[in-house]
Amino acid sequence: MKAHKIASAPVPMRWVGPVKISGNIMEESVSVPLATYESPLWPSVGRGARVSMLCEQGIRATLIDERMSRSILLEAAHAGDALLALQSILTRQQEMQAVVGQSSRFAKLIDIHHQIAGNLLFLRLEFRTGDASGHNMVTNAADHLIRWLLQQYPQLSYGSISGNYCSDKKATAVNGILGRGKNVVAEILIPRELCARRLKTTPEKVVDLNIKKNLLGTLLAGGLRSANAHYANMLLAFYLATGQDAANIVEGSQGVTQAEVRDGDLYFACNLPNLIVGTVGNGKGLDFVEDNLRQLGCREEREPGANAQRLAVICAATVLCGELSLLAAQTNPGELMQAHLQLERG
Amino acid sequence: MKAHKIASAPVPMRWVGPVKISGNIMEESVSVPLATYESPLWPSVGRGARVSMLCEQGIRATLIDERMSRSILLEAAHAGDALLALQSILTRQQEMQAVVGQSSRFAKLIDIHHQIAGNLLFLRLEFRTGDASGHNMVTNAADHLIRWLLQQYPQLSYGSISGNYCSDKKATAVNGILGRGKNVVAEILIPRELCARRLKTTPEKVVDLNIKKNLLGTLLAGGLRSANAHYANMLLAFYLATGQDAANIVEGSQGVTQAEVRDGDLYFACNLPNLIVGTVGNGKGLDFVEDNLRQLGCREEREPGANAQRLAVICAATVLCGELSLLAAQTNPGELMQAHLQLERG
Amino acid sequence: MKAHKIASAPVPMRWVGPVKISGNIMEESVSVPLATYESPLWPSVGRGARVSMLCEQGIRATLIDERMSRSILLEAAHAGDALLALQSILTRQQEMQAVVGQSSRFAKLIDIHHQIAGNLLFLRLEFRTGDASGHNMVTNAADHLIRWLLQQYPQLSYGSISGNYCSDKKATAVNGILGRGKNVVAEILIPRELCARRLKTTPEKVVDLNIKKNLLGTLLAGGLRSANAHYANMLLAFYLATGQDAANIVEGSQGVTQAEVRDGDLYFACNLPNLIVGTVGNGKGLDFVEDNLRQLGCREEREPGANAQRLAVICAATVLCGELSLLAAQTNPGELMQAHLQLERG
Amino acid sequence: MKAHKIASAPVPMRWVGPVKISGNIMEESVSVPLATYESPLWPSVGRGARVSMLCEQGIRATLIDERMSRSILLEAAHAGDALLALQSILTRQQEMQAVVGQSSRFAKLIDIHHQIAGNLLFLRLEFRTGDASGHNMVTNAADHLIRWLLQQYPQLSYGSISGNYCSDKKATAVNGILGRGKNVVAEILIPRELCARRLKTTPEKVVDLNIKKNLLGTLLAGGLRSANAHYANMLLAFYLATGQDAANIVEGSQGVTQAEVRDGDLYFACNLPNLIVGTVGNGKGLDFVEDNLRQLGCREEREPGANAQRLAVICAATVLCGELSLLAAQTNPGELMQAHLQLERG
Repeated sequence: MKAHKIASAPVPMRWVGPVKISGNIMEESVSVPLATYESPLWPSVGRGARVSMLCEQGIRATLIDERMSRSILLEAAHAGDALLALQSILTRQQEMQAVVGQSSRFAKLIDIHHQIAGNLLFLRLEFRTGDASGHNMVTNAADHLIRWLLQQYPQLSYGSISGNYCSDKKATAVNGILGRGKNVVAEILIPRELCARRLKTTPEKVVDLNIKKNLLGTLLAGGLRSANAHYANMLLAFYLATGQDAANIVEGSQGVTQAEVRDGDLYFACNLPNLIVGTVGNGKGLDFVEDNLRQLGCREEREPGANAQRLAVICAATVLCGELSLLAAQTNPGELMQAHLQLERG
Repeated sequence: MKAHKIASAPVPMRWVGPVKISGNIMEESVSVPLATYESPLWPSVGRGARVSMLCEQGIRATLIDERMSRSILLEAAHAGDALLALQSILTRQQEMQAVVGQSSRFAKLIDIHHQIAGNLLFLRLEFRTGDASGHNMVTNAADHLIRWLLQQYPQLSYGSISGNYCSDKKATAVNGILGRGKNVVAEILIPRELCARRLKTTPEKVVDLNIKKNLLGTLLAGGLRSANAHYANMLLAFYLATGQDAANIVEGSQGVTQAEVRDGDLYFACNLPNLIVGTVGNGKGLDFVEDNLRQLGCREEREPGANAQRLAVICAATVLCGELSLLAAQTNPGELMQAHLQLERG
Repeated sequence: MKAHKIASAPVPMRWVGPVKISGNIMEESVSVPLATYESPLWPSVGRGARVSMLCEQGIRATLIDERMSRSILLEAAHAGDALLALQSILTRQQEMQAVVGQSSRFAKLIDIHHQIAGNLLFLRLEFRTGDASGHNMVTNAADHLIRWLLQQYPQLSYGSISGNYCSDKKATAVNGILGRGKNVVAEILIPRELCARRLKTTPEKVVDLNIKKNLLGTLLAGGLRSANAHYANMLLAFYLATGQDAANIVEGSQGVTQAEVRDGDLYFACNLPNLIVGTVGNGKGLDFVEDNLRQLGCREEREPGANAQRLAVICAATVLCGELSLLAAQTNPGELMQAHLQLERG
Repeated sequence: MKAHKIASAPVPMRWVGPVKISGNIMEESVSVPLATYESPLWPSVGRGARVSMLCEQGIRATLIDERMSRSILLEAAHAGDALLALQSILTRQQEMQAVVGQSSRFAKLIDIHHQIAGNLLFLRLEFRTGDASGHNMVTNAADHLIRWLLQQYPQLSYGSISGNYCSDKKATAVNGILGRGKNVVAEILIPRELCARRLKTTPEKVVDLNIKKNLLGTLLAGGLRSANAHYANMLLAFYLATGQDAANIVEGSQGVTQAEVRDGDLYFACNLPNLIVGTVGNGKGLDFVEDNLRQLGCREEREPGANAQRLAVICAATVLCGELSLLAAQTNPGELMQAHLQLERG
């Protein structure tokens, strides 16, 4: 019977680039694989990549932070009891790390945030997870912690292993504010002449469009921590090609594009506070994924976490390439549609 | 050179089900293909599917609305001029439909919403797009309309072909409020005994968890029109398997789960106001996609739009299966992790 | 016993201005009363007012739209039944207006928006309410409509007279998108020289600060349809001085400030889509309120609604004065604190 | 000339209660002053107060946290430089407290949060501010800190004394997540019989309405960290009567109501994470304010901060009284309108 046959969905993939990257993680040019049904994405990212190669420092990609979170939900008799338990719990992070250590070699509990609502206590447990994006690692760690907490605090009872204050694959504000995944800022400084020659636009036009479309337009649409043209497209394609859990493009795409005219040139930045990527874990055993990660230089012998950090900054630089290219295209009436039509006919 | 070789990313895919569906579009049981790197998704959706088969009406999936939008951005001298132009434009929708008709046989302009901000005029053009999800169709229609508007209203100038008030692949409120894609409500009534036998839980436990986790937890996280456990997972897998632009899971996942105890049984509903799916267009020419759509009964001779409507309600029912199953699991301490571990070891 | 004595809270009030206003409602200069405990607000708004007097057209205040809403909540057996009822209801707006007419001479039903969630049907009833802000008028109209609907549609049952989809005095997106209260855009064009002389700043500095603080800063804070420095301050003071329900500053303050350099001068705009003000109704019978409204020219013999429209544009212009002044101050390190300290010592 | 005469806006005020309060700050019954143009508010809060007097523990009001924030904005050459400066700054909080100490005896720097966006560095400085709500105190402290930071880090330049990541009087998510003002949870357990006798309703009806109206309705409206019927009304009236900066009802009203049936009785909770109140500072010198604060027992000799904490829990309890009463009324078709009409005619 067909219904249970194992098969695969071969999503079209192409390598694009190379993209020139600098910053606090790597200094190198790399081509990137993008798997997508939206074929215009390839030339679009490709144009941004070519621009990066022509800029002195390429794309400067700075890793600001990294952590993975799982929020557990516990219940007390009332808010006062929840508060007393919380105050005690917050003093015992060392003990809690010992419990976490039983669940994984790599998980390190680095911070705890909380919300008390009525008698409910949400604990947002935040971890380092080595080279894994860490969904399972933190769920497992949370599972161990919740058992320990229920033993230590009999006045608390089980609510949920995940209380949605994590917050996984949802449009929320908490991830951008408290951090979830890799927080990467990608910046580029593009000479005015290059804007004209390669992007058919001017710094002023890009700045103007970014304000009116990305900042004002998204705001009027009731956007939440989001001001960009199409981060989701690049993220999806990059995540699929590298074996990531691509449902994380939901929070991944909540990022902000900035543009400024600096001494006549174009300063352009993409802020991606929630890149949830890893080089080990679910999806990584597949041959083509391993192959892609290896070509990206993300399967080297490095200290734990360093391969995933490299993957994150490459991803951020890729997003910048596509964002820059589309914004430039939209400064020119008609170019966007022409580009689409040509590609589809071609 | 490797960098530009065309290839594909074979995402693992499995058929799950069958799922029993009723409502205003179809009455039938179908198996569904899910392509994902997260293998626990298959048995999870599968459990929900089995429950649907054991319920009298299965999953009742009601199509509430459908439309596809593109917002253009125009500029006037000041707000007063923008308002005068807007008032005139709103009286000329018939003329505008004639312009749209030159761009496509299928695109029908059905409504226009707007925002004026300072001297900026955002027009959210809303269309029926037949069986296509309609991204390109509405961009093309908008391209024609913007040219016509600039001719008819010389006091307006070009801002952008897309002003982000659409709003495509972003976490915003506008899509849920004004509509974008298919708006589908999926509901099921599960006998108490079935909750116990198949889901190892009670209606009361599911209701309680839904309130505390999905409604309160997401709210505290700063969620935007979102209260669910993991719609994004099912959407991604369904979209990839059926050739959709999976970046649309960003708005697609902004939906609300409801649960109530009704006469001792469990009423459970998933609201998916922004399912952006089609049965023709980008991604649909691929062999495996065609094959999957055919098996889903979505490549039949029907009136324009009917195949895509069918796909949308199947998608919504699939989401419900996975949501129900995960919530039930989370009512039991430890079950979630055990399920994950078993699957990974198996 | 003290506990039930009737008394009053005498909030300090001062008249500020005059403010020069043009646009589609009035062309005149008026002083405005501001009641507040925050005394620095008076000189701050006063500085903006003086700038308005020195600009050729003063502040151009354009009324874009006006409406008052109340959302009722009804319940059906399931979403399919809710949809059928909705489709019928939407065809009967004329009958519904007849029902509304029994509740008030002034209330006019102008539009209905809806949300279906599971078996719930939220109807957002939108009205013109003459010179009243309209809270009670629309509640009364909704009360009549809900009785009529329950008679006409026995398949529907009562949920709530207000389903929070209105949305009154809450931080939501719906009001800005669908409209609630008066939607006013206030704009001014300030010569560069005036920026220097009166505001001690340059157009470039104001534009830069507006982008970084109001647009980016608020966005990063997880703001919702909001990008301004302190609309809430001016709104509170104006509302208290004119007998408005000042709790409506919650949605009133969700607005957007724009700034651009135009030919070397400063274009500055405040968008206030949710000004909920009236010249009749609760709070308006008080002597000082009547006196203030009369001085503002808002108790004249005009067609219904015209006095309230005038009040709304005066309010919007007042907000612009205060917003402009504070932003200008914040472009200069130290000026803000100095101004506060001087005022408090003086 | 009238335009600049100093006067006052005498907002009608009434004492309501007493309200019975317990919890971690006080155990006492107090009447509360409410200044408002909306006269139905008094009997509405009064009904809730009477219920509190009849419940064994009255309203349990738990202070969870308190802090006041100001976010400054600094600029670096690029994100990498901003990150290096940030990492250094975070290690020097003790030195920073010494700087803060020069600006105020009461201000204590307790935490720093941040956002890096492109080359921008937002620092959210969080303080204890004794009995003051602290707006001016933290602005003054931030002013001192910004000067010190610019001296110590010449690679940083001035952006703004307030970067809107604070976030003052705006609808944002940051305040609820990171804290601003007093975070108070108010809870009450109401016997079923009392629900019937005094509130004309049942626990089940209140719970049902709270889910459908406050949670679902607000969510569908695109609400942000908000699920209540009308916190803003009680906050405005309480703030005006006690000399608070009532514009802070914007964030103050972003709170969540919870309701549950517990052993047949009604558990009802109001979560108010952002009560920005003080017993000293702007507005407090006025005679009637002093008088009101004294009657509330908030001008006693206590350790710094204790009077303001007391004021905050009284405020939260007052909000609960009004919220409970309105929700109960809305469970009965027609009661709301009848109550309004009676009051206006009486």
